[in-house]
Amino acid sequence: MLLKQTVDGIGELDRNAMAQARERMDNLIKPPGSLGQLEQIAVKLAGITGNPRPRIGKRSVIVMAGDHGVVEEGVSAAPQDVTWQMLPAFVNGVAGIGVLARHAGASITVVDIGVAADVDIPGVQKRRVRSGTGNIANGPAMTREDAVAALETGIDVALAEIERGATLLALGDMGIGNTTPSSAILAALGGYSATEVTGRGTMINDEVLERKRRAVDRALEVNRPDPADGLDVLSKVGGLEIAGLAGVVLACASRRVPVLVDGFITGAAALIAAAIAPGAKQFMLASHLSGEPGHRLMLELLDLEPLLYMGMRLGEGTGAALAMHIVEAACRVLDEMVTFQEAGVMDLEEEKLLKND
Amino acid sequence: MLLKQTVDGIGELDRNAMAQARERMDNLIKPPGSLGQLEQIAVKLAGITGNPRPRIGKRSVIVMAGDHGVVEEGVSAAPQDVTWQMLPAFVNGVAGIGVLARHAGASITVVDIGVAADVDIPGVQKRRVRSGTGNIANGPAMTREDAVAALETGIDVALAEIERGATLLALGDMGIGNTTPSSAILAALGGYSATEVTGRGTMINDEVLERKRRAVDRALEVNRPDPADGLDVLSKVGGLEIAGLAGVVLACASRRVPVLVDGFITGAAALIAAAIAPGAKQFMLASHLSGEPGHRLMLELLDLEPLLYMGMRLGEGTGAALAMHIVEAACRVLDEMVTFQEAGVMDLEEEKLLKND
Repeated sequence: MLLKQTVDGIGELDRNAMAQARERMDNLIKPPGSLGQLEQIAVKLAGITGNPRPRIGKRSVIVMAGDHGVVEEGVSAAPQDVTWQMLPAFVNGVAGIGVLARHAGASITVVDIGVAADVDIPGVQKRRVRSGTGNIANGPAMTREDAVAALETGIDVALAEIERGATLLALGDMGIGNTTPSSAILAALGGYSATEVTGRGTMINDEVLERKRRAVDRALEVNRPDPADGLDVLSKVGGLEIAGLAGVVLACASRRVPVLVDGFITGAAALIAAAIAPGAKQFMLASHLSGEPGHRLMLELLDLEPLLYMGMRLGEGTGAALAMHIVEAACRVLDEMVTFQEAGVMDLEEEKLLKND
Repeated sequence: MLLKQTVDGIGELDRNAMAQARERMDNLIKPPGSLGQLEQIAVKLAGITGNPRPRIGKRSVIVMAGDHGVVEEGVSAAPQDVTWQMLPAFVNGVAGIGVLARHAGASITVVDIGVAADVDIPGVQKRRVRSGTGNIANGPAMTREDAVAALETGIDVALAEIERGATLLALGDMGIGNTTPSSAILAALGGYSATEVTGRGTMINDEVLERKRRAVDRALEVNRPDPADGLDVLSKVGGLEIAGLAGVVLACASRRVPVLVDGFITGAAALIAAAIAPGAKQFMLASHLSGEPGHRLMLELLDLEPLLYMGMRLGEGTGAALAMHIVEAACRVLDEMVTFQEAGVMDLEEEKLLKND
């Protein structure tokens, strides 16, 4: 019910607000277009929010944590327990996302949506749908019902943040082994081979990389996910944190709140959200281009252009948190710069020497 | 005297502080290298400052404004008066750099180092070396003495900011026509042809672009700047704001303060600084890759990698101001994240599954 209602609530960008924002942007005291993607972000935010002069207020990073049965194939460099062991450091602000969320002025919400170990960590929301997924190299990750429950958990968490006043959300992930289902999702939805989409994740060696490729191959072969059915792809080769994050995207889209995609895993979640509700794409912003090679393919499928090219590949939402400042800058430029008329400076457009056409 | 003393004061990066920073960075709770360029920036800042855990405190944007005799060749879309007309908007925080400096938490210092018009703008430091340069298509931009005076003005302004506690500086420029001398500087110091280095600047049309190329060609032919002598290149085909900004770079390098290069004009200033004192390169950080095509060639000559790829080409220091937040993030990551040992999380390096070699 919540899922359907959320998907049905996703509308179009507000073209009127965008036209007003574009007109103001073109009249600010600078050559038209000279602030590059800052201009495009500001205009997109006008379309997302319906406000021709959008502002960023409260911001929120949502990190979803889940485990993956496929780790039994030996696809990861780290043991599964690292998934939950990292969470106290997220909450306490001493892991990458903890530091970068604080730096962004964002609150951080950490959700155990599918950790395998029997742990209960102070400060982490326990919203476990199940304790880790099945091994996708042998069968489905989860049932279709589990997938819906995890999506709705993500929707619920995001709506609560939006109710509390969040105006910009960032997606973060934690889950040992989660580049493997993310690769499988990209392969399934983009029509790519395992080799094209499988990278080194947390710097695995050649032997582990080969096992990972085979696991992705088998996941696709055994499960035959239907690319026309996002929920089918998610339940067969996805993950619980990926489902939760896809839910966050859908909730943001339904409430006209911009949402920043981070790297490869949140990119997979964004792909799932777009497969379930194509209109959701319009409400996403890309933050950075990850060092994980398949990320570029994901952003192409999502029609998104990254802002930062810094070779980051930590996940956790670190790239998305770092980009929050830029999104805010875009809005401030639109709102706080003055127009040529207001400033009494000669308008370059009247000079008739500008670029042809 | 001040110039020589400043150049002589430029030392090497502190390798010891860098090694300590690198060791800590590699032990933080994340896979080694996974924060990409954030890690490299933090380590570089340790080397620049000599502090193995550097922090960013006060930050300062220095915008130098000057005019260019070469505008009489018809190389620019905007009339020369726009140079001074923009300055009140910088000071009042309503131009691009005004908004982005405020967003970065930086103070802004606007310096009239060579505006042509007889104006005196409240809030702008009047440090005029001369009222605009000569037309470089016909002769030198300025005398060697003027070039030294403008460099020393920049040094003086930067030292004052550093005395006031600035820990990170950003370079900004204003000067109608200043992409033309910047192109000439790049051609002279990089051994490029006018065609390779001349772009559309503020969106000039094909006809103006052709005039601009010819002006760069003639500037090189008439003046024959000596690429082995940075001061010769600067005085023959440079600009007053470019000289001042080169002085800012030299001052930062001599005081071990990191300095952010912005786009094409500040890139030309950085090239001049590096030609005068090659060691100065080590103290520079690139902020963004400008939409102006020659900028990539400049950053190659400077051995710098940009952080932001946003198609910005406004100048004024806008890209540099936007990157201040990222530089601060790099320092906070190094200082505020905990190590595996501190957090009690399994160290991935001990798992022996990491990338070969």
